Amino acid sequence: MTTLKNDTFLRALLKQSVEYTPIWLMRQAGRYLAEYNATRARAGDFLSLCKNPGFATEVTLQPLARFPLDAAILFSDILTIPDAMGLGLYFAQGEGPMFKHPLRDEKAIRALTIPDPGLELRYVMDAVSEIRKALDNRVPLIGFSGSPFTLACYMVEGRGGTEFREIKTMLYQRPELLHHILDINAQAVTAYLNAQIRSGAQAVMIFDTWGGALSHSAYREFSLRYIEQIVAGLIREHDGFRVPNIVFTKGGGLWLEAIAAIGCDAVGLDWTIDIGDARRRVGDKVALQGNLDPSVLFSSPQVITAEVEKILTGYGTGSGHVFNLGHGISQYTPPEHAAALVDAVHTLSRKFHLNDT
Amino acid sequence: MTTLKNDTFLRALLKQSVEYTPIWLMRQAGRYLAEYNATRARAGDFLSLCKNPGFATEVTLQPLARFPLDAAILFSDILTIPDAMGLGLYFAQGEGPMFKHPLRDEKAIRALTIPDPGLELRYVMDAVSEIRKALDNRVPLIGFSGSPFTLACYMVEGRGGTEFREIKTMLYQRPELLHHILDINAQAVTAYLNAQIRSGAQAVMIFDTWGGALSHSAYREFSLRYIEQIVAGLIREHDGFRVPNIVFTKGGGLWLEAIAAIGCDAVGLDWTIDIGDARRRVGDKVALQGNLDPSVLFSSPQVITAEVEKILTGYGTGSGHVFNLGHGISQYTPPEHAAALVDAVHTLSRKFHLNDT
Repeated sequence: MTTLKNDTFLRALLKQSVEYTPIWLMRQAGRYLAEYNATRARAGDFLSLCKNPGFATEVTLQPLARFPLDAAILFSDILTIPDAMGLGLYFAQGEGPMFKHPLRDEKAIRALTIPDPGLELRYVMDAVSEIRKALDNRVPLIGFSGSPFTLACYMVEGRGGTEFREIKTMLYQRPELLHHILDINAQAVTAYLNAQIRSGAQAVMIFDTWGGALSHSAYREFSLRYIEQIVAGLIREHDGFRVPNIVFTKGGGLWLEAIAAIGCDAVGLDWTIDIGDARRRVGDKVALQGNLDPSVLFSSPQVITAEVEKILTGYGTGSGHVFNLGHGISQYTPPEHAAALVDAVHTLSRKFHLNDT
Repeated sequence: MTTLKNDTFLRALLKQSVEYTPIWLMRQAGRYLAEYNATRARAGDFLSLCKNPGFATEVTLQPLARFPLDAAILFSDILTIPDAMGLGLYFAQGEGPMFKHPLRDEKAIRALTIPDPGLELRYVMDAVSEIRKALDNRVPLIGFSGSPFTLACYMVEGRGGTEFREIKTMLYQRPELLHHILDINAQAVTAYLNAQIRSGAQAVMIFDTWGGALSHSAYREFSLRYIEQIVAGLIREHDGFRVPNIVFTKGGGLWLEAIAAIGCDAVGLDWTIDIGDARRRVGDKVALQGNLDPSVLFSSPQVITAEVEKILTGYGTGSGHVFNLGHGISQYTPPEHAAALVDAVHTLSRKFHLNDT
């Protein structure tokens, strides 16, 4: 059993009383930090950074040394699972992640197997343990995975940022094949997140980056259903503590009620939704995480502060809000603007928690 | 005065009785058609195709020769206005539209002027007249423009498909500068659309391709407000006929009530929203246009038919629905699948209009 020095983030996710609204930033260990770029240069490339627990620990802790963030997030890639399945993840110069063997034919799809988190993904579990040690209980550590559909997009397309022609053709023409991939992915993600929890992750987040590209009905059938399957299989308590989970579908604001109904603890919001409306729509069902447009960080600390106040006021009084951006922090963000954001959230939010019980 | 042989599209936009649900396809004159590619090759490049009324007429009519579509849409580019403002539109190989002189400094922004549709955009008005003549009142002709914010994205960024860093920095840091651009754009679009109407456009559509990238509050302040300004200034009747307008914000499903309240006749929907929910949310205020995922056209006619039935059933009985895709048709669409779509909509929709009065 371990006691966190700062468990504000976990308490907010569980809608327990807090003194202020906790904040962390998606992609907080990233290219906007000079020290991250230096470590990455030493590691050689992005994938070596992910696969070396020492480097992963180093970059995970870098933003915490700069800003009083309320959580750390495991530094890793969203595509570790398909890489462990043998699809051959690589990063082409200026191209983002790609797979050497995209999944297109039925034989390869039927041959997919669930990676053993303790073997093929051992390096992730080692990173989790090493980060926990280095964190020394300052703040909680978040583990994460891509959603089954988001992983499938990369697996079938062979790359991100496409118009989803291959996977949507499969979705409409051979739905049973896509369902097979998604079921394997859901089992793999469940085992992977549970292994992260056993290794020390104190909360977990499922990133559904591409679910928002689906139609309302396809989203439910091909993305949300499998996230629900994962959530149902997650370890809820470890080492005597609740391990909350967060589900984030970018572009999923229209489907908020459906997402909040799957049994998750918290729902991530992008910046297109008014967080006050979101709270009214989900009621007491879940906590909410979000939702500042990352572009606000290009402007001045004065503007950042005003936008923070809008979101805090939108959410209103009481616990259940974790402040975050609505998407990963841009590499072009001045670090002092991230500092201004964290400070504004910590300072301005106290008045909304005076009556937390 | 002219009488249309088929005015189903206009009647649906005005929520008047129809015998079947009319359909047209965004980007229906496009690269999925071999005859379009042939004309484009003869024209030399995309911009020459737009700027030559003869070629523009030819490609506008091509999809109508193949499919019994219920409307034609002017073949033109979304960026004719900023081009006419002198920003220097060009198309780099494989890059999409770009501007030689992106708007970044205050002096250039303050010097922006509204183009005269009869002079700098004369070629568009000539195309509208020539297309109307060639159509011979078979179906109505739709005129269009980009929204003020969407035009501003290209003008400030100098290109599309970005993360909107330049324009969002301006939005948060120098909002008065962006408001100046948007106000000029709104005046320019109003004059441009009214000139298209005077030249023969029988309905007009405003494409807000990038408004969905904004936060809920920035959308209202920097995009919708200027669309509202345009709608208020549009000619509503010409040559004895009502000229309906359609407003389409891609990714705007969360803001549907706000869009429907600006005084437009119809709202375009992308495929992320259930059209039945959309109809319940807007009530009798506006007609709805949409909303099949264009990717459905990669699958078989059987699947296309089933997805069409879902959308028609979702909208339900009565007038006020124009069938369309939720975004432009993909260049990879087999034309026979577009034919299957048009046929399915025409055939399956009749049962929903038996009681139209």
